[in-house]
Amino acid sequence: MVSAAQALEQLLHEEIPLTRALGLTVTQAAPARVCLAAPLAPNINHKATAFGGSLYALAVLAGWGMIAVRLKAAGLQAHIVIQEAQIRYRQPVTDTLQAECHVPDEAAFARFLRIFARHGKARISLPVTMRGTAGEAVVFHGDYVIHS
Amino acid sequence: MVSAAQALEQLLHEEIPLTRALGLTVTQAAPARVCLAAPLAPNINHKATAFGGSLYALAVLAGWGMIAVRLKAAGLQAHIVIQEAQIRYRQPVTDTLQAECHVPDEAAFARFLRIFARHGKARISLPVTMRGTAGEAVVFHGDYVIHS
Repeated sequence: MVSAAQALEQLLHEEIPLTRALGLTVTQAAPARVCLAAPLAPNINHKATAFGGSLYALAVLAGWGMIAVRLKAAGLQAHIVIQEAQIRYRQPVTDTLQAECHVPDEAAFARFLRIFARHGKARISLPVTMRGTAGEAVVFHGDYVIHS
Repeated sequence: MVSAAQALEQLLHEEIPLTRALGLTVTQAAPARVCLAAPLAPNINHKATAFGGSLYALAVLAGWGMIAVRLKAAGLQAHIVIQEAQIRYRQPVTDTLQAECHVPDEAAFARFLRIFARHGKARISLPVTMRGTAGEAVVFHGDYVIHS
């Protein structure tokens, strides 16, 4: 029996080969929370902290994973595309990279699925946070589009 | 004799190991323009286009590279850190990834270096664009901080 986290990890590794180079693992894949992790070593920079591009990659995939998990739970199939994103680096990440996505507005997510069902296309903004040793290290917001 | 492009490529490969997994090359490294490239294969996604995380990584490094090139030309040494970024994906990239950074406001860049010389810390916003087969594919703006 494959867990939801294993299924999402396998999907990401198959569909985006770079996730293997990142060392990406899925630690949680539930509608309430999707968590991704990656070891520091393959993602390190010259300051011995996590490379900003690796942090972004994990964040954008956490949001992507959340939509994938919820589409599956709803029995829907769609293409998920990142359209726009903002990322703020508040402090360096000096250990395992960890990205966490949750849905802050359930009514907005329900509307997103309704619009998709009606029009075959919908858009939603999702936040992802990454913790460092001293609290919130990275704040990410991604605007994702799903289409049939 | 190592060209400026080769020197920047070597620096990026040494300081950020993930750049090797991306297949990153530096095609130009001049104060007027820094251009980075990467083949599609290691950066592909499930739609056979470039992964948004790879596009971001190339863009953020093009801006980083521009600051590195200009600091070197000015005989200055500093740490370069990405603080905040926005990225917009306008169309998919279906071939070699190419990121180009230029400095749109020379007066602002001169001020940036002056502030750094005086205070040991300064901040600048730089744009990076990535072209697709049908024009501009990705627009990126990064806020970088340099500090001594």
